[in-house]
Amino acid sequence: MAKKLGRSTIRLEKVPVILSSAAIGSKMEGEGPLARYFDYLAPDAYFGEESWERAEGKLQQLALQTALSKGKYAPEEIDFLFAGDLLNQCVGSSYGLRDFEIPFLGLYGACSTMAEGLMMASLFVECGLAKRAAAVTSSHFCSAEWQFRFPLEYGGQRPPSAQWTATASGCAVVGTGKGVSVRHVTAGTIRDLGITDANNMGAAMAPAAASTLLTFFRDTNTHPADYDLILTGDLGQVGRDLLFELLEKENVKISDRYHDCGLMLYDREAQDVHAGASGCGCSASVLCGTILTQMQENKYQNVLFMATGALMSTTMVQQGESIPGVAHLIHLSSEKGGERPC
Amino acid sequence: MAKKLGRSTIRLEKVPVILSSAAIGSKMEGEGPLARYFDYLAPDAYFGEESWERAEGKLQQLALQTALSKGKYAPEEIDFLFAGDLLNQCVGSSYGLRDFEIPFLGLYGACSTMAEGLMMASLFVECGLAKRAAAVTSSHFCSAEWQFRFPLEYGGQRPPSAQWTATASGCAVVGTGKGVSVRHVTAGTIRDLGITDANNMGAAMAPAAASTLLTFFRDTNTHPADYDLILTGDLGQVGRDLLFELLEKENVKISDRYHDCGLMLYDREAQDVHAGASGCGCSASVLCGTILTQMQENKYQNVLFMATGALMSTTMVQQGESIPGVAHLIHLSSEKGGERPC
Repeated sequence: MAKKLGRSTIRLEKVPVILSSAAIGSKMEGEGPLARYFDYLAPDAYFGEESWERAEGKLQQLALQTALSKGKYAPEEIDFLFAGDLLNQCVGSSYGLRDFEIPFLGLYGACSTMAEGLMMASLFVECGLAKRAAAVTSSHFCSAEWQFRFPLEYGGQRPPSAQWTATASGCAVVGTGKGVSVRHVTAGTIRDLGITDANNMGAAMAPAAASTLLTFFRDTNTHPADYDLILTGDLGQVGRDLLFELLEKENVKISDRYHDCGLMLYDREAQDVHAGASGCGCSASVLCGTILTQMQENKYQNVLFMATGALMSTTMVQQGESIPGVAHLIHLSSEKGGERPC
Repeated sequence: MAKKLGRSTIRLEKVPVILSSAAIGSKMEGEGPLARYFDYLAPDAYFGEESWERAEGKLQQLALQTALSKGKYAPEEIDFLFAGDLLNQCVGSSYGLRDFEIPFLGLYGACSTMAEGLMMASLFVECGLAKRAAAVTSSHFCSAEWQFRFPLEYGGQRPPSAQWTATASGCAVVGTGKGVSVRHVTAGTIRDLGITDANNMGAAMAPAAASTLLTFFRDTNTHPADYDLILTGDLGQVGRDLLFELLEKENVKISDRYHDCGLMLYDREAQDVHAGASGCGCSASVLCGTILTQMQENKYQNVLFMATGALMSTTMVQQGESIPGVAHLIHLSSEKGGERPC
């Protein structure tokens, strides 16, 4: 049985595992340093579709299809699907995944969606509510730019704090058996320190990341040194610096074991992505491709994956509102039973 | 421990209960036949705010605040909050609820959100993941009209199949103790029979409602006669007729114990709402106000609450796409232990 440690941290006793996962990307992800960890890299951003929204749906469809194929699972063997994305009304998920006919629980966590979905899927397996459950999310540079900022044709200039939305998707199938295990989860609260700049998502998300991480350490009575890697979703350069600053005020130092998916996905200089990558698909594809592979290869044994979401809407930003953030944390382990950090 | 019955139906053995609930509405809800069941009815649709989106956030804030006050709970006594709404990026929830600092798990299920949230909250309590959890959702006529159809100032004419988005919110706090209990839940799959008319949401949602209801009856081996009331979210007149037609093909007849929140909230003729009410706030406020009160008064003992969501986006409708629907079911009971229908 799952055990509550504090209000929103849960220790998973049956230790559900990630049975199978997939990462899908596009041309730009294929030109980046993590290309070899993707299961499929499309030659362009269209994915054979006629609109960016349909292309994003296709991304999720491919991610789920690939994760199922890799694990040799039929859609009927998945009891619940947790999915969401950045598009209005999460249409990447609903249109991309409707044909699988898997019981569907839609999420909205912005770029925290991969952690939220993985948390739900893991808890459902842990509690015997699902034999297997899957988490999927995506983002698409072109659909996100025109929805959140400007249509690409406008040719708007991007400030240095801007991040580049990944055209990518990730899917993880959770169940029992062999694989990287989910040991703890912590759900975050909404944090808002008053950032109003839609081109500075990292700063909007950093307070939420700091809050969730501190909650996790307190609830589990562990320290950064107990983990090999502390990985945020897509804080980018600006958000990372702010996260370090916020944690240092609490005497917590993570910089020697820290990375950010948004700073890993692209070569920031050669690919001119300013503050780094972002989008639900960024942390989803880095986790489901790179990190899970590296954990299987024993590069990392205990990883804290903390996807961060800026709960932004253009409507609210235009009304002068600040941007709230939320971050959910998943503790992943490749240790085969035995001692755990807590 | 929860027991799986079939793929997506779960029987809750510990029987979590709805400890407290609240329904908030506006002027038009106050002029309808269910007015006396609302906890608060604002005199206008502004709720003291300067934009429709902020007004919708205020609706959710009031709903949660009222449900907490009625149950005498502090926000810190709620472990998880499940919330979402119809607005792009679910800003009604994120902006309306951010100040409570309750661990926040965002949902997107369109008008199925109340059932999805109540399902999650109940499962979290059942499995010991939460001592108490709350589900909140809302809709606002003015924010929905301009986002999904036309700005009100345009004065567009509404076809007879159109439904009137409720300016309302509902909140339920789930825990253990005394109250109406959650006995079963069934998560639905996405259904799409090809409806492309953004003014005919009822028809887009009916196939999902039929599918989820048939799954529930099959998984629990029960029949319509085992329940006093089968209540859909907001199919309205058009969707209701289609639901009956789809069920009759399977020899399932529910019309003698059926109602639809969308057909209950307003006086359709006097209030000129065409096919009925809709919006996340419609089924949420009817459930959290009227139905839970009537169950406590013993008017109903076993109720199937099935909120239905049209996973529509204007972008996809403009691209000629059809509108997928999803429906989740909650079996509520006011029986004090003893025999259950299954």
